[in-house]
Amino acid sequence: MRNIKLTIEYEGINYSGWQAQDNALGIQEVVEKAIANLTGERVNLIASGRTDAKVHAKGQVANFLTNSSIPAERFKYALNTKLPEDIKVLESQEVDLDFHARFDAIKKRYRYVIYNGEMPRPLYRNFSYHVDQPLDISKMEEAAKHLIGRKDFRSFMGPRTDVFTTIREIYSVDISKKDDLIEITIEGNSFLRNMVRIIVGTLVYVGLGKIKSQDIPKIIDGRDRTLAGPTAPPQGLFLEKVYYD
Amino acid sequence: MRNIKLTIEYEGINYSGWQAQDNALGIQEVVEKAIANLTGERVNLIASGRTDAKVHAKGQVANFLTNSSIPAERFKYALNTKLPEDIKVLESQEVDLDFHARFDAIKKRYRYVIYNGEMPRPLYRNFSYHVDQPLDISKMEEAAKHLIGRKDFRSFMGPRTDVFTTIREIYSVDISKKDDLIEITIEGNSFLRNMVRIIVGTLVYVGLGKIKSQDIPKIIDGRDRTLAGPTAPPQGLFLEKVYYD
Repeated sequence: MRNIKLTIEYEGINYSGWQAQDNALGIQEVVEKAIANLTGERVNLIASGRTDAKVHAKGQVANFLTNSSIPAERFKYALNTKLPEDIKVLESQEVDLDFHARFDAIKKRYRYVIYNGEMPRPLYRNFSYHVDQPLDISKMEEAAKHLIGRKDFRSFMGPRTDVFTTIREIYSVDISKKDDLIEITIEGNSFLRNMVRIIVGTLVYVGLGKIKSQDIPKIIDGRDRTLAGPTAPPQGLFLEKVYYD
Repeated sequence: MRNIKLTIEYEGINYSGWQAQDNALGIQEVVEKAIANLTGERVNLIASGRTDAKVHAKGQVANFLTNSSIPAERFKYALNTKLPEDIKVLESQEVDLDFHARFDAIKKRYRYVIYNGEMPRPLYRNFSYHVDQPLDISKMEEAAKHLIGRKDFRSFMGPRTDVFTTIREIYSVDISKKDDLIEITIEGNSFLRNMVRIIVGTLVYVGLGKIKSQDIPKIIDGRDRTLAGPTAPPQGLFLEKVYYD
């Protein structure tokens, strides 16, 4: 028995997210079927975490146990022949039998892209959130500082979530602007359901003047989802990288 | 009667190109239908030039004559309500009645994106040409210099073309690399059918060592399509900007 770790890139537009939803295809099942097709084994593919419907990944990490004799580094080529164009394995390697893609993740990096221009842009539509009113980046940066650290992020958690604790640590929030594209890069130890999208939705509200940057601590302390901004749409979000020891 | 100039962005993946082909939808007819839907008029939309199937545009220019009383600058908003997500009007303005999007164009800028890495990448697949062998950029730059100027580009012209002359002028070819993405930006007065894609296919062959950079003048002088490299695939190509006096 060997444990294989995969690094996976996907364009999320056509999927229900990592997990299957009623009648919509999940990325997990597509990769599991490719593995079954290749090895004849029905495996349970464990990801670093779920991604929402339409969310993209450049570096999702997942692992599975196999009795196959395929060399670990060949899995990426072999699986890619079975996978659709919008899901591909970038790396495959053998790891210790006790490696667990979710429990062992120590840090994640997400990137969120906002297109801040007037007219809708076909080339950006599947990879950004279109905000057509001008955003005040310096106010968003002020607000972002208040999010750094180990805090209770209950106000930034989506519905229908069952977690042991809502305390998470954010290491950094970087905001950069190039022409009409704004990128928000967030690193943290772990994230609650919809947390990055609610953070972005809140920062956008700050940028629009609908929430004051100095009110962010109050929003965190309130531990109430209704205090934060809206959930930004999924297609602007990219799971960039998952870190392990 | 007024003459309206449109600047149009489109993602070309789902279209047969600017022009309709057997059973495949052309961008021209989609925009013409949106105009008919809005004004009740059947117009003939004249573009700066055709783009091939799957080729993208960030700044295609087209014009049409109308008796509609809609203010010129309102056309973009009104047409966008009728257009699909992958085709949008970025600008609309009234121009002189004798303005002609094709005949009056004095310069065009194209950009071509090559993804030069080993593994297939879902997020790049519709917007780049995947070359999985390493490319020698400095050799490609040497080769590109030989393309600059007013020359007979018959060797770089696609099939089934009926043109008065195959002489064109290329003003610049810039090649830049950032991580595993290579961008080739080409400016010229006008381009033959498939010309940018054949130039890119030839530069890729130079980068792979299959054609020598110093052989480019011979390829041009030969006036024979079989001397140049292959036609690079369409999805890496973007019509960036069309210039008028």
